[in-house]
Amino acid sequence: MIRTMSVKEKSLKLHKEKKGKLEIIGTMPIKNGEDLAVAYTPGVAGPCLEIAKNKNDVYQYTMKGKTVAVITNGTAVLGLGNIGPEAGLPVVESKALLLKKFGNVDAIPISIDSKDPDDIVNTIKNIAPGFGGIHLEDIKAPECFYIEDKLRKLLDIPVYHDDQHGTAIAVLAGLYNALKLVKKNIKEIKVVINGAGASGIATAKLLMSAGVKNIVLCDINGALVKGDNTLNDAQSKIAEVTNRNLEKGNLADVIKKKDVFIGVSDGNVMTKEMVKTMNKDSIIFALANPTPEIMPEDAKLGGARIIATGRSDFPNQINNVLVFPGLFNGVLKVRTKDICDEMKIAAAKGIAGLIKDSELAEDNIVPSVFNKDVSRAVSKAVIDTAHKLGLARENLI
Amino acid sequence: MIRTMSVKEKSLKLHKEKKGKLEIIGTMPIKNGEDLAVAYTPGVAGPCLEIAKNKNDVYQYTMKGKTVAVITNGTAVLGLGNIGPEAGLPVVESKALLLKKFGNVDAIPISIDSKDPDDIVNTIKNIAPGFGGIHLEDIKAPECFYIEDKLRKLLDIPVYHDDQHGTAIAVLAGLYNALKLVKKNIKEIKVVINGAGASGIATAKLLMSAGVKNIVLCDINGALVKGDNTLNDAQSKIAEVTNRNLEKGNLADVIKKKDVFIGVSDGNVMTKEMVKTMNKDSIIFALANPTPEIMPEDAKLGGARIIATGRSDFPNQINNVLVFPGLFNGVLKVRTKDICDEMKIAAAKGIAGLIKDSELAEDNIVPSVFNKDVSRAVSKAVIDTAHKLGLARENLI
Repeated sequence: MIRTMSVKEKSLKLHKEKKGKLEIIGTMPIKNGEDLAVAYTPGVAGPCLEIAKNKNDVYQYTMKGKTVAVITNGTAVLGLGNIGPEAGLPVVESKALLLKKFGNVDAIPISIDSKDPDDIVNTIKNIAPGFGGIHLEDIKAPECFYIEDKLRKLLDIPVYHDDQHGTAIAVLAGLYNALKLVKKNIKEIKVVINGAGASGIATAKLLMSAGVKNIVLCDINGALVKGDNTLNDAQSKIAEVTNRNLEKGNLADVIKKKDVFIGVSDGNVMTKEMVKTMNKDSIIFALANPTPEIMPEDAKLGGARIIATGRSDFPNQINNVLVFPGLFNGVLKVRTKDICDEMKIAAAKGIAGLIKDSELAEDNIVPSVFNKDVSRAVSKAVIDTAHKLGLARENLI
Repeated sequence: MIRTMSVKEKSLKLHKEKKGKLEIIGTMPIKNGEDLAVAYTPGVAGPCLEIAKNKNDVYQYTMKGKTVAVITNGTAVLGLGNIGPEAGLPVVESKALLLKKFGNVDAIPISIDSKDPDDIVNTIKNIAPGFGGIHLEDIKAPECFYIEDKLRKLLDIPVYHDDQHGTAIAVLAGLYNALKLVKKNIKEIKVVINGAGASGIATAKLLMSAGVKNIVLCDINGALVKGDNTLNDAQSKIAEVTNRNLEKGNLADVIKKKDVFIGVSDGNVMTKEMVKTMNKDSIIFALANPTPEIMPEDAKLGGARIIATGRSDFPNQINNVLVFPGLFNGVLKVRTKDICDEMKIAAAKGIAGLIKDSELAEDNIVPSVFNKDVSRAVSKAVIDTAHKLGLARENLI
């Protein structure tokens, strides 16, 4: 507790000193009249006219091709909920900072003062010309699904909601290595995902794409079962294709005889008694921040073999920062229109593959977020997949 | 001509090499787990919660207070017209570059894919939480007036259309020193402004605020006269308060016996014969780019005493870059809601005041855009005026 306080205080102090986390600097010299003529009038008319003739030249002459907008509306910020567009800004600035530091991607934080999904879609559509990709962040479910889907249809650039796909990819990366250790087949495992918001639903979808057959989603009201008319649209749809055995009850009921628990919910909702009811060699990803669904020592006492959290002070930190910097680095390089499931699965395999078999261990299933190979591996996986699937467009432009 | 070609080629080459003109860099270190905890989770929850408690703390903990959005929709780019949002990007990137280089203001280029004024207003309103000011650029008249007016009412941050106010302020700065040289009183001069778009109308308004009584606006259809129902709204309004003598006819007709010609129109629309019909000691600001309304040598032959253009290769370059970097530097420091006429006039006086009486000459009425004192003088003028009028809000936040 003292440590957390101290981090918060340091954070407040540093944010105040630096006035946020980013600086916009010029890349062209402006030292004399000729510099000004080249970078501004009359020279700038050159790029303007080239782009007017061929719209795709915007990738040649502007920062579009290397720049992502990190966009929130402040409705689902960290574990803090709907705290508004201003209060959501520090997180999108952080994400932009991490995109640059880990992925060498220029990123611009934008916070939208609207909760109306169509208004948000229209705003993002309107500002899209200057960006090579859209990174959505901390937008509450179920609106986030609608917004992402609409934008993917409207825009010619990749749209990615980190709370969904970043979590899903990082979880899948950890899961690949965990399963290797416990020698279980991804097609045979039984999984409970606790939390049926953006992260939980996206994780369920990606795990199914990766071959998982048996998934039960669960939230504060218990297991999601198809036909339950209290579910929202996104939940209803995922309930149709998960929980094939129509398991009912709360987390304590459905966790019995499962192989994997994935928590993207709230702190302290899982107990060691519940872990004891799981299958042998159980895998616990307790990703709620800052307090996990179950503390690692309790999961261990319950018999879990592999335990991961979202925290940097425990082993096996499963964090989106493993994913999004390299992912955007890759998609910007190949200019794909979309980020498809094949790319996400390849990215997860790329991350998992950085742990050599000789180094793989219960407390070492994912690489450190500071491992510079992570971003490179994710970028390469995305690029290779785009080429394989014929989705790369770097030559079209 | 060879020189212009060469500048354009250099510009295309440099734009391509640099991938645009800006880079977004991080200001906080991310070297280890503690750095990550401070700049990202869990530390970032600190600033988020402080801002959720007190919205104005967004100025303390994010880049809002030092950051301006430079926004176009590509409908009136340079002299190139409506070339679209993508083709408009190089200019907003240039303006962002100049804001940083000359004003130490972080600026983010945004190009909006919409021509509907209400849609543009709504989009800018929606993305405003992250910005300390809005710099509108290259949006066609008359929509630009509506957009600026609406945004000024909706937003709590300054909204500034550079094509209007940057030109108006730079012209007024030059005019102050020109009038000093020719010993004419600003209240007694007769002025023709050629060009009745954003720049022309805004310049007329500011000149009136500064004391000019006799202004005739003119465009390709001739003098603007009140009651002419072919005028757009903005033109009708300005025609109500200018051209009190209801002068009619084209530029050649109305320029007779005037003291000052201000061209914000097209190249080569003014002749030396027309200059000859003006009053003694005539002042010619031929600001069309790259080709002025009249070339300086022709204006001289027509008897003009003081000639300014928008070009760097002639004396007396009257360019908006004298204005906007220092202006935003100032308004961001004092966090005024608006940029009022008193501030604009003070900014013009600040620029004019940099030419000492001993240095004032026909070919030296405005400082060089590379004079570092310009931005400081404009910033100081704005800050002092805000304090004098009680508009500064740096203590409120």
